[in-house]
Amino acid sequence: MLKKLSAEIFGTFWLVFGGCGSAVLAAAFPEVGIGLTGVSIAFGLTVLTMAYAVGGISGGHFNPAVSLGLAVAGKFSWKDLPAYWVAQVVGAILAGGALYLVATGKADATVGGFASNGYDTLSPGGFSMTAALIIEVLLTAFFLIIILGATSGRVPAGFAPIAIGLALTLIHLISIPVTNTSVNPARSTGVALFAETAALSQLWLFWLAPLVGAAIGGLIYKLLWNEKA
Amino acid sequence: MLKKLSAEIFGTFWLVFGGCGSAVLAAAFPEVGIGLTGVSIAFGLTVLTMAYAVGGISGGHFNPAVSLGLAVAGKFSWKDLPAYWVAQVVGAILAGGALYLVATGKADATVGGFASNGYDTLSPGGFSMTAALIIEVLLTAFFLIIILGATSGRVPAGFAPIAIGLALTLIHLISIPVTNTSVNPARSTGVALFAETAALSQLWLFWLAPLVGAAIGGLIYKLLWNEKA
Amino acid sequence: MLKKLSAEIFGTFWLVFGGCGSAVLAAAFPEVGIGLTGVSIAFGLTVLTMAYAVGGISGGHFNPAVSLGLAVAGKFSWKDLPAYWVAQVVGAILAGGALYLVATGKADATVGGFASNGYDTLSPGGFSMTAALIIEVLLTAFFLIIILGATSGRVPAGFAPIAIGLALTLIHLISIPVTNTSVNPARSTGVALFAETAALSQLWLFWLAPLVGAAIGGLIYKLLWNEKA
Amino acid sequence: MLKKLSAEIFGTFWLVFGGCGSAVLAAAFPEVGIGLTGVSIAFGLTVLTMAYAVGGISGGHFNPAVSLGLAVAGKFSWKDLPAYWVAQVVGAILAGGALYLVATGKADATVGGFASNGYDTLSPGGFSMTAALIIEVLLTAFFLIIILGATSGRVPAGFAPIAIGLALTLIHLISIPVTNTSVNPARSTGVALFAETAALSQLWLFWLAPLVGAAIGGLIYKLLWNEKA
Repeated sequence: MLKKLSAEIFGTFWLVFGGCGSAVLAAAFPEVGIGLTGVSIAFGLTVLTMAYAVGGISGGHFNPAVSLGLAVAGKFSWKDLPAYWVAQVVGAILAGGALYLVATGKADATVGGFASNGYDTLSPGGFSMTAALIIEVLLTAFFLIIILGATSGRVPAGFAPIAIGLALTLIHLISIPVTNTSVNPARSTGVALFAETAALSQLWLFWLAPLVGAAIGGLIYKLLWNEKA
Repeated sequence: MLKKLSAEIFGTFWLVFGGCGSAVLAAAFPEVGIGLTGVSIAFGLTVLTMAYAVGGISGGHFNPAVSLGLAVAGKFSWKDLPAYWVAQVVGAILAGGALYLVATGKADATVGGFASNGYDTLSPGGFSMTAALIIEVLLTAFFLIIILGATSGRVPAGFAPIAIGLALTLIHLISIPVTNTSVNPARSTGVALFAETAALSQLWLFWLAPLVGAAIGGLIYKLLWNEKA
Repeated sequence: MLKKLSAEIFGTFWLVFGGCGSAVLAAAFPEVGIGLTGVSIAFGLTVLTMAYAVGGISGGHFNPAVSLGLAVAGKFSWKDLPAYWVAQVVGAILAGGALYLVATGKADATVGGFASNGYDTLSPGGFSMTAALIIEVLLTAFFLIIILGATSGRVPAGFAPIAIGLALTLIHLISIPVTNTSVNPARSTGVALFAETAALSQLWLFWLAPLVGAAIGGLIYKLLWNEKA
Repeated sequence: MLKKLSAEIFGTFWLVFGGCGSAVLAAAFPEVGIGLTGVSIAFGLTVLTMAYAVGGISGGHFNPAVSLGLAVAGKFSWKDLPAYWVAQVVGAILAGGALYLVATGKADATVGGFASNGYDTLSPGGFSMTAALIIEVLLTAFFLIIILGATSGRVPAGFAPIAIGLALTLIHLISIPVTNTSVNPARSTGVALFAETAALSQLWLFWLAPLVGAAIGGLIYKLLWNEKA
């Protein structure tokens, strides 16, 4: 279990440090910045790379919603869920702290939103709470369907990290303007703590919506396409 | 069959919601928008991810033209074609509706073309109907050739979703300026219904050209490179 | 042999239509154009996708320099070389024609350089003939090394199209500003015929340099790392 | 051993010529330049492609820090380390020279920083020495964890170059603004020699930090997740 939890801590650290780090440090760099496309690729590659690195150890969830959805689908033990959630949140907060250290290591540093998630005035594109709820639920549900399908016996071994990582890239390509894209309560928590905005006051949505969406996704997969069904 | 049709509904939903969603929500976001490159990547990843997720269940067509081309090539049952087409169009329209809900969830929302396909005045780059016909036929034909080759016995299992998904990315990188890229009648239908432009009046071309192209592609593959030939 | 030659015709058509098409139609589209990154991805994906589609039939060269380098390395029959070269050039010219048809299908169409290769005044960044020679030789040599290595017995089956396609993407990311990137005499020929510039007068370099580079690459691989050595 | 060392020379040459070449030649090309996203993709693809090409021969390190980290983890022989380091630095310097030749082959050529690494006034975003140290140590540590995990027995053969190459892409997406991204002392050396800035005076950090980070990464992997542990 130590092996598994440390894998989840390091994996979630990498997801938050790499994904949010690319957003905070490189997205809006003058003239040659990576933009939302670069940030989307970065988020996906954090999962792709760490899923290859330690996915064989912990399953490579790096996300409380993923752990929940897998449990709902009967692919992850309910009794391991609390420990996984703690590990994921710890990794995310450590990553937020490390990123804060680097990002403030320059003369004219501004922390600002710090890549945190939000709706209404904290939505990058000014989208409402309802729009945020809908898209976070919907995208997390599909994320779980893809995870469950790609790790099923129908797909040859080794391809799942590609499918899952690139699913996260896709999810970001769609929804950064709406909520800055969460689908991962740990990721939202890890940076909200350091944001200079009111991100913490909206954090509830980025726990609620991804968890609900993941449960729905897990249920859909289990009912419709489960190998044992 | 319920398993298969639900897989096609969800897969086509994802294709339209993800591909058109990235275009509507993120393509032209100020300064850091994902542009046509990001939209092209998004479309490709919708197919790559859902082909891994449910490709083993329904074949992962998510596109009436693909189903037709596979039938022409003898790789899909003609009698299942109508049900697949219905499922694909249903999934696409549901996705258009869900996207409409999200996209209008902000104060200054404008629906506009809603990522619909078009020619002449509705072509992003002002291309003629003839140019639109040529490119949609040609690209769909190659799409089918790639699908048939990548799923043939000549390629080791597991790689097809990569080849096919990235083929769709490539097709978008080429042709968004011409027709906003269809090669998929369901995708065109799903958003044309919600567009504020005259997209519906041009929808015939985005059924005709992809279907003709797919049939040609299926025929070319069958005649030239079929394993049994 | 008909199977093989038709595969080379279609494959080289796709390379030129897709790669040059993305450059001509989408690279400089206002505000959301795909830029050199999108063009680089497009070129790579033409090879990745058609190598999966028909690589198992013809070997998937789509490039006279590749056929030569493989022959030098002892992996392709010298007596098939002329027929492959003809097929590749035919495919490329057909693609140039098809692209011309589409690209001129709008009111304010300008053909211009038509994605042709060049040096000095025809180099996108104004690079000299010497710089063009060096980089085309060097990049084609590495391209062959990657092709030979990725298709060797040291790499599990199925990964070669990914390595080779993405190598072409990388090559374009480096060198579009220098020569608009050839490393492929057929690709250069297919669009030079339609360019409104003096591209044809510089075409010799884009036959000479890639062929020399490919021969060097084939020789290096054979001498240093050949499995039988 | 000649086979192995030549593989490291060519591989590191490609990494520096391709990665730094894309930065020097194409990153800031007017209007359609590849930006930091394109450079990040290029760096990753140099490793992905050459790992497929010659990874089966030398292991495909192309980086003194990687060789050290693998030795610390017990996956590479300490007595081969010096020869690998020499080969990597030689390959990198040759690449810097070849790139210099190409880059200066135009009328208005400016060498400038020549894609060298730096902190403080030589950091692209003006980040401090401390921020540079932290991020180079941290990113190299994760790079080694990913390399060790992806090449472990837990991952099916053939996927490692994808995981490792894309990890380098991700690392660049995060940290180009901070240090121009090293995580590779050979890469830093190869271009610092040609830079017109004071890059050589800061080269010590880009040996120290990646080596320390790699050792930490190797140690973490060995202690936490080693298959034999």
